[in-house]
Amino acid sequence: MAPEKYTIGIDFGTNSVRAVIVDVDTGEEIATNVRNYRRGEQGVITDPANPHVARQHPADYHEGLVGCVTAALAEAHSVPGFAAEGIIGIGVDTTGSTPMPVDREGTPLALQDEFKDNINALAWLWKDHSSMAEAEKITALATKHRPHYLAKCGGTYSSEWFFSKIWHCLFVAPDVFEAAYSWVEFCDYIPALLAGDTRPEHIKRSVCAAGHKAMYCEEWAGLPDAEFLAMLDPKIGQLRSRLYEKAYSSDVIAGYLSPEWAEKLGLVAGIPVAVGGFDAHYGAVGAGVAAGTVVKIIGTSTCDITVAPKTGESLNIPGVCGIVDGSVLPGYYGIEAGQSAVGDIFNWFVTELCEGDAALHDELTSQASALKPGQSGLLALDWNNGNRTILVDARLSGLLLGQTLQTNRAEVYRALIEATAFGALTIHNRLAEYGVPIERIVACGGIAEKNALLMQIYADVSGKSIYLSRSPQTCALGAAIFGAVVAGSEQGDYETTEQAQAAMTGVKDTVYEPNPDSQPVYGQLYGLYKQLHDSFGLEGHADCLYDVMKRLLDIKQQVSN
Amino acid sequence: MAPEKYTIGIDFGTNSVRAVIVDVDTGEEIATNVRNYRRGEQGVITDPANPHVARQHPADYHEGLVGCVTAALAEAHSVPGFAAEGIIGIGVDTTGSTPMPVDREGTPLALQDEFKDNINALAWLWKDHSSMAEAEKITALATKHRPHYLAKCGGTYSSEWFFSKIWHCLFVAPDVFEAAYSWVEFCDYIPALLAGDTRPEHIKRSVCAAGHKAMYCEEWAGLPDAEFLAMLDPKIGQLRSRLYEKAYSSDVIAGYLSPEWAEKLGLVAGIPVAVGGFDAHYGAVGAGVAAGTVVKIIGTSTCDITVAPKTGESLNIPGVCGIVDGSVLPGYYGIEAGQSAVGDIFNWFVTELCEGDAALHDELTSQASALKPGQSGLLALDWNNGNRTILVDARLSGLLLGQTLQTNRAEVYRALIEATAFGALTIHNRLAEYGVPIERIVACGGIAEKNALLMQIYADVSGKSIYLSRSPQTCALGAAIFGAVVAGSEQGDYETTEQAQAAMTGVKDTVYEPNPDSQPVYGQLYGLYKQLHDSFGLEGHADCLYDVMKRLLDIKQQVSN
Repeated sequence: MAPEKYTIGIDFGTNSVRAVIVDVDTGEEIATNVRNYRRGEQGVITDPANPHVARQHPADYHEGLVGCVTAALAEAHSVPGFAAEGIIGIGVDTTGSTPMPVDREGTPLALQDEFKDNINALAWLWKDHSSMAEAEKITALATKHRPHYLAKCGGTYSSEWFFSKIWHCLFVAPDVFEAAYSWVEFCDYIPALLAGDTRPEHIKRSVCAAGHKAMYCEEWAGLPDAEFLAMLDPKIGQLRSRLYEKAYSSDVIAGYLSPEWAEKLGLVAGIPVAVGGFDAHYGAVGAGVAAGTVVKIIGTSTCDITVAPKTGESLNIPGVCGIVDGSVLPGYYGIEAGQSAVGDIFNWFVTELCEGDAALHDELTSQASALKPGQSGLLALDWNNGNRTILVDARLSGLLLGQTLQTNRAEVYRALIEATAFGALTIHNRLAEYGVPIERIVACGGIAEKNALLMQIYADVSGKSIYLSRSPQTCALGAAIFGAVVAGSEQGDYETTEQAQAAMTGVKDTVYEPNPDSQPVYGQLYGLYKQLHDSFGLEGHADCLYDVMKRLLDIKQQVSN
Repeated sequence: MAPEKYTIGIDFGTNSVRAVIVDVDTGEEIATNVRNYRRGEQGVITDPANPHVARQHPADYHEGLVGCVTAALAEAHSVPGFAAEGIIGIGVDTTGSTPMPVDREGTPLALQDEFKDNINALAWLWKDHSSMAEAEKITALATKHRPHYLAKCGGTYSSEWFFSKIWHCLFVAPDVFEAAYSWVEFCDYIPALLAGDTRPEHIKRSVCAAGHKAMYCEEWAGLPDAEFLAMLDPKIGQLRSRLYEKAYSSDVIAGYLSPEWAEKLGLVAGIPVAVGGFDAHYGAVGAGVAAGTVVKIIGTSTCDITVAPKTGESLNIPGVCGIVDGSVLPGYYGIEAGQSAVGDIFNWFVTELCEGDAALHDELTSQASALKPGQSGLLALDWNNGNRTILVDARLSGLLLGQTLQTNRAEVYRALIEATAFGALTIHNRLAEYGVPIERIVACGGIAEKNALLMQIYADVSGKSIYLSRSPQTCALGAAIFGAVVAGSEQGDYETTEQAQAAMTGVKDTVYEPNPDSQPVYGQLYGLYKQLHDSFGLEGHADCLYDVMKRLLDIKQQVSN
């Protein structure tokens, strides 16, 4: 009998990194370990003077990587039939766009003495919104000079993305910008690190990061052209040649595990490491994303990921953040949409307003379950962290409407859940309008696992059955699947990513079915949500609410200076 | 030396009743006592099935009256020179419009066995909003058939007022309506009770209640005509002859203390009792209201009261709840405006959302004091209990706008205070537009006494100095002033109410001056508030926010049925 074969999936999240060791035949996770980042607040380094700043230290990545892989291996060694030699591939996903400035060797500037105390030399975490002004300027420049660039990323370039951050760095920390030979996405850095060669020219960059966050597309031969980037700043134009020419999907090998890292981790050198990708996209793969199936990863924020068959025609969906060839499944358009805050909104309410903890989440969920749709008279907008999809505007904020003197916590909590459900439906409706109908929803992520009320509301609001991914660690499982794919069909048994998905993923028995009694009321409430939402649309702004929300932010900025 | 002369002011609030014994020469309060009502929640009896219902039991009024007057007298007896014989007059104020159904003898139905468990036989407390539908219908009927009726009460008849409540009673409890010989305002009932004759035909009704809440005006010979009232319902038309023909200002004697009540209270029979009035109006008198001076009574709700000289022309101010000849000071137009919830909004936030207590109010006030205007990026509407003045619409609700994931409690608390300041400014600006300029603001009420942050924000937002009434019990002091006025110039030394005010009222040394640094930002924020506010104006409703807020209430009602 042949020895059992396994792959390792390594998933770098916002607060921690997880390794899972997965059986290649069944997708069974035989061992797993999580390491929390140690620096900042749960790994996020903030700037008291600017609430939009969110950074991370690459040393947390290094330490976490070694910690979780060695611990998962130690656990796996107690499984009969497991041996380190049975590991045939490694996949890696990370948050993104989380770029970091590096030197010629690809070493992060943050690890160098000269920059060790410089917050701008750290990794610029996905949810860093300090580059809002630059994002607006990039959107304006591209709208005027390169509208096709924006068509792939929803019509608006985000403050969360690669070039906004690099440009903002040039503005706030020119010394860091000058010292940076290149900038590398977190998801490109880790596979290169494992393969023992982080030199920027040698790194195989992820098409997921490149296409969704850096306006990369084969239609225009890669990254935005140097002439366009020089419109941002001549120095950004010059940087282009030190970035990359080509990006790859994750069925491609980024490199082979180096002897140095094999020893650190307790693995055999030479194992293929897949080109990296973003956690949400890998999560979708691990949850069984397919044409007609959207995977909702519900966490602090959400990602809605689906794929569409390539028809020969270019696919553009206004307001949908990213449509990238091969970014999710090789051979399909990968479509990424999402909400900038979901769990974060509930956490904000519980932590900041109620000053409660996890127990209060449970209590409010239980109380909110007893309420009927529409009963509270409340309506909320889910924009406490801006709007990522459809409106694509980080400078939006939250709204709560309808409160009386009797309004209680549970009612607000439910209204916030409903707001996120309405936000999700707005995204799915937009996809369907542009020829990407959604037939099936598979949810994953901590909140999907834990909060039956939220899942039921999502089913009621969407009018669709909602399935739960079998694995609770879909991102890491997705990484393990790509580990199996890059191992090749002889080692890993699979010719395609779809074949690997079919064998290694599944859904749970629990399915949330829409309640017909709730449909009419939610139809009405969604109509109201949509009315408010649309008053923030790009055309017109006839509604004073848009104006008020924006001017409040102007005033806030003005008095903070 | 002549014996010292005193009057008793009795002030029936929402949760308690207070008696003060006041030196007629100086206004000094030599004794005071408060009794909380015992029934319901702090005296307010609610209906779990309908959050708009708020009632009170007349037995609480009787018990509280005896309790506080006898206790205040007991305290006064320890003051040198005091004797019960020195008390020369009694004044009474109450909440309103708080009508109650009574029999031929004027006995409240709630005190009768047959109706003792019937919530609709109780006193219908001012803040009972269950009669919204009737208010809208009265507004529509009067707009069509008797527009001059509405001109005196802001253009819209409120669900808080006399005829809305009576009509709603006919709808929800026809048995109570049928059993009621008449309906009597709380402020008319107590003086009649003290005078020993509550028969409806004998009660001297307050022009304050009649004019502000029951569309009474001498221009059209009293209450609305029977033909109009019959348009509501023929039975309301028939009721008119069992209500009253004439109403009086509070310099008129309602009656003389009966032997029975003199004995109950420990007083001498035959003391004159002034015609009653509403707490807010009496509070204004006790705080020194005059032409150009507005008195703001800041409590759970606020009243803004001022007076305007009679010019011969009829004074109408759209959206201002009441303009009534003699309702505040005899010989002037009394003008009443106000916000349906102020302290109630802060209490709602602290109690319902933060689940805190008085200590948390202090803590949040202290934290909010450290914030700069505009710094939070928040804006709120102060309509958790509807809008009483300018929009005159109980079917409005609260709104909070601009929250992020960092928004904290203190920021929300400050935004709520600011919202109430903006609401107040909107009222003062409207008065000035219609020829009633405000030169001086005198504040009173518990919040004005206790919350320096709120007072400073009010000064900053209004751009005017804000004075504090010397007496913390201005309502009761106002009642005592009318007690002195009805005692007559021989007994009480004063020819007019103004003379009595001049001697018996004053302001404190503490004055809140507007901070010039805050003015520009508050100017901008108020502009935004006004923009939202005006999108709810009676003309147009071009803004979707109006539509959304109203339809939410429709849905709420629909799912609650």
